[in-house]
Amino acid sequence: MNHPVRVGTDPNETRVRILKVAEEHFRRIGYHKTSVADIASELGMSPANVYRFFPSRDAINESICGRIVNEVADIACAIARANAPAAEKLDQLLTAVHRHNKMTVVKEKHMHDLIVAATQENWAIVRAHIERMVTLFEAIICEGIEAGEFDVEDAAEAARAVRSAFMPFFHPILIEHCVQHGEDTEAGLRDQIRFILKALGKSG
Amino acid sequence: MNHPVRVGTDPNETRVRILKVAEEHFRRIGYHKTSVADIASELGMSPANVYRFFPSRDAINESICGRIVNEVADIACAIARANAPAAEKLDQLLTAVHRHNKMTVVKEKHMHDLIVAATQENWAIVRAHIERMVTLFEAIICEGIEAGEFDVEDAAEAARAVRSAFMPFFHPILIEHCVQHGEDTEAGLRDQIRFILKALGKSG
Repeated sequence: MNHPVRVGTDPNETRVRILKVAEEHFRRIGYHKTSVADIASELGMSPANVYRFFPSRDAINESICGRIVNEVADIACAIARANAPAAEKLDQLLTAVHRHNKMTVVKEKHMHDLIVAATQENWAIVRAHIERMVTLFEAIICEGIEAGEFDVEDAAEAARAVRSAFMPFFHPILIEHCVQHGEDTEAGLRDQIRFILKALGKSG
Repeated sequence: MNHPVRVGTDPNETRVRILKVAEEHFRRIGYHKTSVADIASELGMSPANVYRFFPSRDAINESICGRIVNEVADIACAIARANAPAAEKLDQLLTAVHRHNKMTVVKEKHMHDLIVAATQENWAIVRAHIERMVTLFEAIICEGIEAGEFDVEDAAEAARAVRSAFMPFFHPILIEHCVQHGEDTEAGLRDQIRFILKALGKSG
């Protein structure tokens, strides 16, 4: 399918269309097999024209990666904002994020490969995503402390520890390893969340 | 240097000498650049003769990998056997294992690369090593429960959770990532051990 860009289109709209086409290609054939020429051709543009909207191929990769991690962040934010006990929200959030990341490995392998590259190469968008997740953990922990659910001295430190303790269920390379070797993660996930809640002073 | 193998040598001794030469090569030029022909030549043997003692190149890799993980296991066992409170032993064990693995990345990059391959490819020797570490955690946790230091219902489940919670400081790929990006792991290590001990019911 072709998505020709009309002359005089709003630059923001063009950026969105470039990303839409790039994402379609990434999902279908993988980010490393997609060239800027492929994207430009589908939009009826020259590659040079694409570079007017994105300074480099890396900038396109980062933007698509941002869209994927934003899906995770949106799920996490919705749970963090809900009106529920802190322990329940933390449990739901960790479970939802793990299942989403695992589903990406299983059903969206090409997108998962992009996230793995972004993680290994320490892209700014991944660092920001991790910071955002830790901030959400901290906000929930603070709510739990105020409600007398959690017994924690330093919420920021505890939030970083939660992130570390949850790494096997969050990190793309570690999840991929489990999937590749047919390991069931659900039982371990429940145990790990119980362990984390106990460390926060909530023995469930 | 040459290590010629004399005719009529004890087969076990020959196996040990093959491994010694293989390990020297692995440390110097890396396991993927070392051929069986290199090893054989250094020992004054034919490659076919080496294959009489090790059925495949993979068998040599696994044996060397076993020697490296045994170093870690020996450190961990010595700490687990010491006469000290359980919390103190778990702290010391986790600290020592993290520092040893980190030192391997920094000072023995070729050996680290072998461990990464073994981990990613899920070699039996790595699975056995992880099982052994979890068993040591469980033994220490049981001691802590008996001494009234820890408050844990299921020591085996808690031991697996400790392993997961400690993953960022134990997994070769994750440690390498920290080293590559110049992250200091010491402060996070202290916090994570405190978090783990709190989950085991030992606050402080």
